Amino acid sequence: MATKYGNAIVGQSGGPTSVINASLAGVFRTAKDLGYQKIYGMRNGIEGLLKERYVDLSEHIRTGLDLELLKRTPSTYLGSCRYKLPFAEQDGAVYEKLFAILKKLDIRHFFYIGGNDSMDTIAKLSDYAKDSDITFIGIPKTIDNDLGMTDHTPGYGSAAKYIAASMKEIVRDTNVYDMESIGVVEIMGRNAGWLAAASVLSRGEDCDGPDLIYLPESVFDYNDFLSRIQELKKRKKALVIAVSEGIRTADGAYVCEQNKGGVSLMDPFGHKLLGGTALYLSDFITRELGIKSRGIVFSTLQRCASHLVSRCDITEAYAVAAHGVRIAGLGETGKMTTLLRIGNDPYQTQTGCCDVREVANFEKTVPQEWISAGGTDVSKAFVDYAKPLIIGELDPFMVDGLPRHSYLPN
Amino acid sequence: MATKYGNAIVGQSGGPTSVINASLAGVFRTAKDLGYQKIYGMRNGIEGLLKERYVDLSEHIRTGLDLELLKRTPSTYLGSCRYKLPFAEQDGAVYEKLFAILKKLDIRHFFYIGGNDSMDTIAKLSDYAKDSDITFIGIPKTIDNDLGMTDHTPGYGSAAKYIAASMKEIVRDTNVYDMESIGVVEIMGRNAGWLAAASVLSRGEDCDGPDLIYLPESVFDYNDFLSRIQELKKRKKALVIAVSEGIRTADGAYVCEQNKGGVSLMDPFGHKLLGGTALYLSDFITRELGIKSRGIVFSTLQRCASHLVSRCDITEAYAVAAHGVRIAGLGETGKMTTLLRIGNDPYQTQTGCCDVREVANFEKTVPQEWISAGGTDVSKAFVDYAKPLIIGELDPFMVDGLPRHSYLPN
Repeated sequence: MATKYGNAIVGQSGGPTSVINASLAGVFRTAKDLGYQKIYGMRNGIEGLLKERYVDLSEHIRTGLDLELLKRTPSTYLGSCRYKLPFAEQDGAVYEKLFAILKKLDIRHFFYIGGNDSMDTIAKLSDYAKDSDITFIGIPKTIDNDLGMTDHTPGYGSAAKYIAASMKEIVRDTNVYDMESIGVVEIMGRNAGWLAAASVLSRGEDCDGPDLIYLPESVFDYNDFLSRIQELKKRKKALVIAVSEGIRTADGAYVCEQNKGGVSLMDPFGHKLLGGTALYLSDFITRELGIKSRGIVFSTLQRCASHLVSRCDITEAYAVAAHGVRIAGLGETGKMTTLLRIGNDPYQTQTGCCDVREVANFEKTVPQEWISAGGTDVSKAFVDYAKPLIIGELDPFMVDGLPRHSYLPN
Repeated sequence: MATKYGNAIVGQSGGPTSVINASLAGVFRTAKDLGYQKIYGMRNGIEGLLKERYVDLSEHIRTGLDLELLKRTPSTYLGSCRYKLPFAEQDGAVYEKLFAILKKLDIRHFFYIGGNDSMDTIAKLSDYAKDSDITFIGIPKTIDNDLGMTDHTPGYGSAAKYIAASMKEIVRDTNVYDMESIGVVEIMGRNAGWLAAASVLSRGEDCDGPDLIYLPESVFDYNDFLSRIQELKKRKKALVIAVSEGIRTADGAYVCEQNKGGVSLMDPFGHKLLGGTALYLSDFITRELGIKSRGIVFSTLQRCASHLVSRCDITEAYAVAAHGVRIAGLGETGKMTTLLRIGNDPYQTQTGCCDVREVANFEKTVPQEWISAGGTDVSKAFVDYAKPLIIGELDPFMVDGLPRHSYLPN
């Protein structure tokens, strides 16, 4: 039984999340339990593997405590990359090199934890290796929640929880003085507004939540923006507005591009790096309406604040990874594991899988029917969808007053 | 016994903190226990009181649970103000109005929770009322830790804990890819670098912490900044730099003023509102050295993130308030309560008090001997001072996955 599985290798790719290491823990522990042989970890994903940078995970994760600490560590334990694998027809040499390394390590199972671009990698590798005996499985991960075929993605729930909790605190902070004031809070999301939409979860018995919510799924209009603020100001002195970094006007121009101070860089996938939306809009409000306004940017904190993870999220991050290890053992390849929602009352999901080609390079956006108030709010249906994903906590291991993390030296 | 104390009124003033409501809880509960009569709360400090906006706190804080929830609520429960009380010789009418309101409410004890400017208010009121039978007591509060006569201020420890915990997460996030990258993290502090210095607490067995720390107490030099980065880049790909928002060059110019996009506003006290330091420096690094750099601004989150308070801080915030109520009952007036450190091993403080005039309008900065590495780091003496202040947690009351707050409608 034990020998049936052979060696495995696992990598992490794309942007950090608070729970991507819980998926790594899920791969490692399940593989150990099932009787896999060596379990390697790529340093900095495929990019590092191509330089033969990897570790034997058993040498680093030795105890149950190590595993629990790993689950509580944000960003990526193994390091990540933004490496776009070329098509085999374009650059066969990369594939030959990669498969030579896999052969040398006698790898039978390849796991890659990541988002759209990582699933593209899995699709290409499993296509290339369709006649080999190596299985390639993708484990979903992204705070952006923009992967298709899965109800939601691990990483989203914890980012949503951080955004909603911080939004509650910002709403209180913005209301501290008896004076007119507007906070504009910028939340990650280039084309999909799932994260900005999650700010609505702050709304409840003890908090008004954001007064306006702008997603990239709707066209942004400066005049409408100002007139809505003026309308709201008739009954409230302090307003808080949530904006996705990627909001655009009807001509397709990003709001953040209006900001002369903003830097316009591209990442290696040719995605424009955004930023400056909140600062531009807060200046715009002050200039046009003469109201004190402050831009607040969650920046990288929303993707790495493991001190406030969602228990639901971290459990599911572990579960989709464990499921990947199980199906790889059954010979599945070219698949991404998924979460299927059974119901909300009580909330329940089960793990499944889909063809990774159905996920790669596709972005799932917030459905139009969940966007309300003329593109300035989200509906109850969204709240029902998102609320269960932020439930529960997993307390950090606190040492000297701070969360302790797992640490793998370079 | 019970009648000896009469009525009291308490207000909150200045910027929000995560634990200012713990001080309010300390005033309320101790006053109740000692047998004070009515305990009023000013809405939005003196400014609201002058408009006769106040509440009877007993109508809102009814149970032990209410009190515990209040301790876990950030910003100010009663609302705050930035109201500069004029000198009595300049505007006697304000004083007459205020004391008429106090007389109408039959107030015997006046408590004001705040920072430098609030202590100035207490100094002026107690001077004006020196022949009356009303006592005026200041309760220290500020994340800035810039009040004299007290070892440290309530509010600082929780902000320091949030900064250090978030810094650990940012350091991990910045190290995620195998590429050159620099994060510049902007931390509050106009003239005093206590908060930026606290970022050093992230440094430990599992984290390098910030590679450079710049405080307003040292002169900032652009060329030295670049050469230190180039030196560090020889051995590390990813760097994180902590900067106080108020750093200045030798000619006294704020770094943030270099940022054309920055807005230069004044607050009602004539303090320049800062911001833009991190964004300017990250652009500067990219421009001069061609290295990818990101500016991250903690903004208001560092002063209102009650989901991650320091237990030490919240306990002391309550204790200095309780002490204020006790000394007011003994007839003391024109005093601010203080924390005196007994020792670090074990860490222990006791409460005391000082003449509020010794505190008002004075800013305590980080001692030069605690600043090291040519103004780019802080010493072990600082760490020994600050570390005990972030120890321990007070878990929020989580409802639907989010911290619940206490809420007083306007």
